[in-house]
Formats: sequence, C-alpha cells, structure tokens
Amino acid sequence: MKSFIEYSSDTDFPIENLPYGVFTSPSNEQKHIGVAIGEWILDLNVISHLFNGDLLRDQQHVFKDEKLNSFMGLKKAYWSEARATIQNLLDVNNQTLQNDSQLRERAFVKQSEAKMHLPADIGDYTDFYSSIHHATNVGIMFRSKENALMPNWKYIPVGYHGRSSSIIVSGTPIRRPYGQTLPVEGAEPHFGPCRLMDFELEMACFVGGPPTKLGERVTAKQAEEHIFGFALMNDWSARDIQKWEYVPLGPFTAKNLGTTISPWVVTVDALRPYIVENYPQDPPPFPYLKHEDNFNFDIKLEVDLISEKSPVVTTISRSNYRFLYWTVKQQLAQQTITGCNLNPGDLLGSGTISGDTSDSYGSMLELSWKGTKPLRLKSGEERKFLQDGDTVILRGFCVNENGVRIGFGNCAGKLLPAVPFE
Amino acid sequence: MKSFIEYSSDTDFPIENLPYGVFTSPSNEQKHIGVAIGEWILDLNVISHLFNGDLLRDQQHVFKDEKLNSFMGLKKAYWSEARATIQNLLDVNNQTLQNDSQLRERAFVKQSEAKMHLPADIGDYTDFYSSIHHATNVGIMFRSKENALMPNWKYIPVGYHGRSSSIIVSGTPIRRPYGQTLPVEGAEPHFGPCRLMDFELEMACFVGGPPTKLGERVTAKQAEEHIFGFALMNDWSARDIQKWEYVPLGPFTAKNLGTTISPWVVTVDALRPYIVENYPQDPPPFPYLKHEDNFNFDIKLEVDLISEKSPVVTTISRSNYRFLYWTVKQQLAQQTITGCNLNPGDLLGSGTISGDTSDSYGSMLELSWKGTKPLRLKSGEERKFLQDGDTVILRGFCVNENGVRIGFGNCAGKLLPAVPFE
Ligand SMILES: [Ca+2]
Ligand SMILES: [Ca+2]
Ligand SMILES: [Mg+2]
Ligand SMILES: [Mg+2]
Ligand code: NI
Repeated sequence: MKSFIEYSSDTDFPIENLPYGVFTSPSNEQKHIGVAIGEWILDLNVISHLFNGDLLRDQQHVFKDEKLNSFMGLKKAYWSEARATIQNLLDVNNQTLQNDSQLRERAFVKQSEAKMHLPADIGDYTDFYSSIHHATNVGIMFRSKENALMPNWKYIPVGYHGRSSSIIVSGTPIRRPYGQTLPVEGAEPHFGPCRLMDFELEMACFVGGPPTKLGERVTAKQAEEHIFGFALMNDWSARDIQKWEYVPLGPFTAKNLGTTISPWVVTVDALRPYIVENYPQDPPPFPYLKHEDNFNFDIKLEVDLISEKSPVVTTISRSNYRFLYWTVKQQLAQQTITGCNLNPGDLLGSGTISGDTSDSYGSMLELSWKGTKPLRLKSGEERKFLQDGDTVILRGFCVNENGVRIGFGNCAGKLLPAVPFE
Repeated sequence: MKSFIEYSSDTDFPIENLPYGVFTSPSNEQKHIGVAIGEWILDLNVISHLFNGDLLRDQQHVFKDEKLNSFMGLKKAYWSEARATIQNLLDVNNQTLQNDSQLRERAFVKQSEAKMHLPADIGDYTDFYSSIHHATNVGIMFRSKENALMPNWKYIPVGYHGRSSSIIVSGTPIRRPYGQTLPVEGAEPHFGPCRLMDFELEMACFVGGPPTKLGERVTAKQAEEHIFGFALMNDWSARDIQKWEYVPLGPFTAKNLGTTISPWVVTVDALRPYIVENYPQDPPPFPYLKHEDNFNFDIKLEVDLISEKSPVVTTISRSNYRFLYWTVKQQLAQQTITGCNLNPGDLLGSGTISGDTSDSYGSMLELSWKGTKPLRLKSGEERKFLQDGDTVILRGFCVNENGVRIGFGNCAGKLLPAVPFE
C-alpha cells in the first residue's frame, strides 16, 4: 500500500494506520474530525461527501460532528467501510483527492499547525488492573509477598470506575495536588502537597457500537462489536494520598487529579496485523469471560522522562501491551456482567502495563521500588518519584514481520508545582 | 404563603418547595423543565418569558432546555431569583398566570399524566460513605468490631467514583444480576444470579454553578456555590458480588447494575428552614473540610417494601438525613481536593443513611444483620434480602415548627428476576 502523501518510513501514521482524532486549526476554530497521515491530518469534515459506501452513504453527518461519539456509535462494519474509503482516497493510484487541488488544499492540515482535543465525550471511564506483573509488584509493596495477588485477581478482571471529567488530552499540564497522607503508620494523618507523584503507563480502549441497555450483558465473545480503538493513557497517581484513602472503597482523589490520553485513536482494524497470543490463563476463566480468538496486541510501549533542568531525554521504561493478563474483551465483559450499560465514547483503561523485568515497569513506584532504588537519568539527576517540572511522555508502536510500523503518537504531560493552600 | 393552585396539607409539593424536574406529557414528547406544585407541574418551558428578573432576563433559554444542566450551571443568585419568580407567579395574590386562562391551560400539566425523566445529564457520579452508623455496621459485618471504622474514616469523607450511565429515574425496574461470588471462604468462586440483593437508602446532591477547572480546589467554605439541590437515591447493591470483588479497588459491578433517583430536585433554598446542627466531629477536620455554618438537614426518610405476593406496604426503615457525619459541603471539598473538576449535573451520593437504632438502618444488610435477623413484613412474609418482585420505595420529607411540610416524592423500583445466562 502506498499513499500519494509522502512520509518517512518511521512515521507513526502511515496509510496502514489511519487513526481518528479531533482537531482545530488556526484557520478554523470549529472542531473537526480528522485522520492522521504522515505529518498531515486529513479533514473528514471537509470530505464527508466522499463516504459513498453502502453503509456510510446515509451516515455522512457523523463526519461533520465535533467529536467521534456518533461515528463510534455506528456498528463495526461501518468503521471498516470508513477505513477502506479513507485508505482508498489516500492511495497513490486514486485521483479523487490527489488531483483535485482545490479540495486537497482544504482537506489537509499540517499536524504541527493543528491543536488536538479529546477525541470523544467520555461518558464513563473505568480503569482496570490487568497486568499481572504490576498487580504483583504493587501487592508486594502495599501488602506483602504472600498476599501480593488478591484471591479474586485471577478470576475477575478487577477494575474501578474513574472520573471522566478529569480526562485530558496530551499536552495539558498536571498540577501536583494537595491531599491527606499518613506519613507514619498509626500516627496522625498529614495535609500537604503530594510527595509521591507518579505516572502509570496504560492504554485505553474507546467503546463503540450502539449503546447497550441497562440490564444487558456483553460477553467476551460478543465484545468485539463494542471495541472501537485504542489510545495511550497516563493515569497520574498520588501514591501517598492513594495509600491513605483507598481502604475500603478504592482509589478516589489520588486518581481524579488528571488522566492524560493521546489524541489519536488507533482502530482495531489497524492493529489486527499485530495480534499475538493471549496471556495464558490459569485457572480458566468463567464462560462469560471466555473467547477463543487471540485478542492481544504486540504494542511496544516506552516512557520518556525529561527534567526541567536538562533537555536530555531518558527512556525510563520499555514495556509491551502484550504483558496484560486479561484481554480488553474480558474487561468489557466484566464491565457489563451485572448489566451495566455502555455508551460509545466510554473509556476502559488497561491498568498499568508492567513487564516482568525491572526496566519494563509502568510506574515510578515499581521502577524505583517504592523509592528504595532511585533511577539515574541521563542528565545525571536521580528520581524516586516525579519532581516538579518533569515531563512524562508515553509512546507506543507496532512493527510486523514486513517492517510495517504504526504508532500512537505521544501522550505527554508536564508536572507543575502545587498551588499553595491558603 | 399561599398559592392559587390548591393542594392538600400533606402534599410533598407546596409553594414552599418548588422542586425542579424534567417531564414529557401525552401531548408533547419533547422534554420540558417543570416545577412540582401540588398535583401539578408548572411547565417552565411555556412560561420562560416570565423570568424577567435582573439576572434571568438574559438567560431565559435555560428553561427551554431538555435538561437542567444549563440552569444548574448558573450561579446561586440565579437559582434564588428563579425561585422567587416562580413563587411569585404561583402566589394567590399574583394575577399573571392565575388570570391568563390561555397561558394557564398550557402551563400546567397533571403529574399523573406526565412521564418523569432524569433531571440532568449526569457527567460524573460519586458515592460517599458518610453515615457513621452505616460504616460501623458494615465494618463489623465485613471485617470485625475492632476494625469496623477504618483509620481514615474520621479524617476523610470516604467515597468512590460510580457509573453515571447506570443512573435511572424512579419507576425503572431493576434486574437481579449475574456475577461472581465466593460462597465458601477459601474455596472456588461461583458464577450465578446474585443471592444477596439489597437497596441503599441515600440522598444525592446535584452539583451546580459554572464548571470548575481541573487543578482547582473547592473548599468546604466555598462549596455552597456548587450545591444545587437534592433527590432521593437508591444505590441497589449486590452484596455477595461486592464482597468478592471489592478488594483492593472498591465496589465495581456490584453497584453499576442500576442506581435509582427520584425525579424532583429539591433546592437548598427550599431546605433552608430545615437546617439542623452538623454532626459533632472529633477529631476536628482539616481546614479544607471546615465550615462554620450548619449545613445538615432534618429530612425524615422512610423505606417501604411491597412484595409481589401482597399489596400490603411495610415501612421497613425510618431514618434521617441528619445522621450523616460528613456534610455535603465536606463531601464536595473532598471531591475536589486534589484538583478534580466539577460540572453542573454531577451527582454526589451521600452513602447509605443509617441511624443508630436497628429500625433506622438504610439497607437490608443491616436491617437483617447479614441475614441473621429476618424482617417480618406486614403480609406475613419474611425477608433477609430482596426477593424477585419486591418493590422498594424511598420517601423523604421535612416538617418545621410551623407545620410547613415539603417532600421529595418517591424513589421507587421493582426488582425483576435475573435473565438466565445461556
Ligand atoms: Ca491505573
Ligand atoms: Ca452506596
Ligand atoms: Mg459519566
Ligand atoms: Mg462522566
Ligand atoms: Ni464516571
């Protein structure tokens, strides 16, 4: 496959990718839906009339929206037709866009000149806990080696509801929060700035398909109809606040200070060539969690840390989506097992994705082993947890045997100092 | 105060109340915002042109919306002006509506002929855990008498994020869910219909005021600007599922099977005559949780249970909002302490409201003490937990020294049998 749009071989956005996003440009403050191609955005609002396939012909209005929810809310077959249409329009052998200089002029916007927004209205957001290495590491540190994995962990894709209002798009700065902590076990709690700020390397799945009804279940076997695509996610975490507040109802204010996602949603169709075997599961899951097909992805994940004091980038972790124990189909089945209804645009976070080696952990908590093994940055600085002025950048990409590479772009955020409490 | 609309002295909706809701009527499928008065609804969409006060004159469009979010998103002074305007229009001495028979014909709809809807788009929903008696009871049952109240409980208004998509309006039936449970400690988990279905007697606060920004804190002293009003809430709970899933990230699928709220939102201005002393707090709360004024309410709460087998109603609990340890101002301060942003229409559940006597507990779990003390219904039946076909009705009302009574209407739901898993 070759596009008439030129791009370098290491771009995140070749014609095989075609992720969806929402952008504004200097010449137009209205949000448009677009697709990333090389260093460009193809503006789908401008070319909505070109979606002339059997299914989308009568649904062109979804590309005129200011968010992806309506498009996500169509069925899977519609998403595939959209992808085929866009791939065809961008193909070097297709003249429709290529040779219409007027339309082409209006239809392409430089990514460097665009401002990206949240791709969808996120009605509800769930964060899972599906990496066995992460759950084990945290269990050892917060509890004990013996009780590291809770008894339910291998039966249930454990998760909790998060705060959808606090989800922000890559580039938005994060504030170090104030909150309560318990510096000394058994003593009085303390109120002040968080001292153990952390990131969490995650991926997030956007739910698609028509809304389900309250009371309806979606089993793992049925789940694919509701999985639209994926973005990178940084679930910023205030560890000291979390530790004091999380019993017995789970993380609350330690997690609602901001969750960053990358702006481009990479579809399941784009990820299909990178499907790998599911993580082996023992005990076998209950029928509602069972699916026979592989639905795990070889997505290489990296975390870069940049201190304010030096421009030198340190890659502090190299992980992979495939390390997840539970698949996103199983997560979705768990989300709905008691009848919870889904809406297009809902977000399912994977949980922190840690590998089994200490350089593949997905959080500072694990990388510095609770602060006991400081990381050395290339700038010479040390880090146990994040410091004010630190920028964290998550990246993700897939490469297959034929060398075809697709990527997720950046999920970046800078930690700003706390605003003093008066 | 006297209205030209006639109603009986025990109505929930005298001219002193004026709660807001969203309804459709047989003659109009478009959702309108209305105010309950006696057995009628005053249609604010139809009389939006009568909001001619200094503030609302330029905001009349909020009464043309299909939900309350825009009105809730105005500042507190606007809400008060709206209340004064409506109270004035309904006053027996005011002729505007009373003597305009054409307008009056269009502006009033019988509640019995209307269908009520969710009053607002609920962007995010949090459930707190603020009744000390409930937290103690549950702690004793799920843990032990010694560890009943967690060490953080008297420092933090403990809460967790819930699932906003699963919030439904009074009258919507609830399905008994399937899920995982652990019938025998240490043995294998089981998958099947929930066996310990429960209700939770709660009240819910609708957040109002302009949206706050991520990173902004709202202290308890500032919170009143963001408290629009209250409804009754039944947080249906699958106890056996909850017990197995809730460690370590809190309740998840045990709570997202449906949460019922009453359709009428009673404003803070209406509740002001029923303010009582705050619950005494020891240790004193941190400054961000401190407010000097009383912001507790004498709201009498009742739970009725009706079995499918008999029309006889049993009032199984009599509780009171005033039993809450933490005020809603403190809950809101906790919600935002790390910078979580608020949107008008967000919902804050109080947590189950239990008194200190066994007939004032707010759940079957407590009323039957984990099933060990079955309740006897007036029909002669017994109940440990809810049975299929049971209807649960929450009611709430205030009466002051002058005998002025305002109420919340009903928060009702019927439990339907599980849909078998194929
Ligand atoms: Ca997380
Ligand atoms: Ca509750
Ligand atoms: Mg929501
Ligand atoms: Mg939300
Ligand atoms: Ni939510």
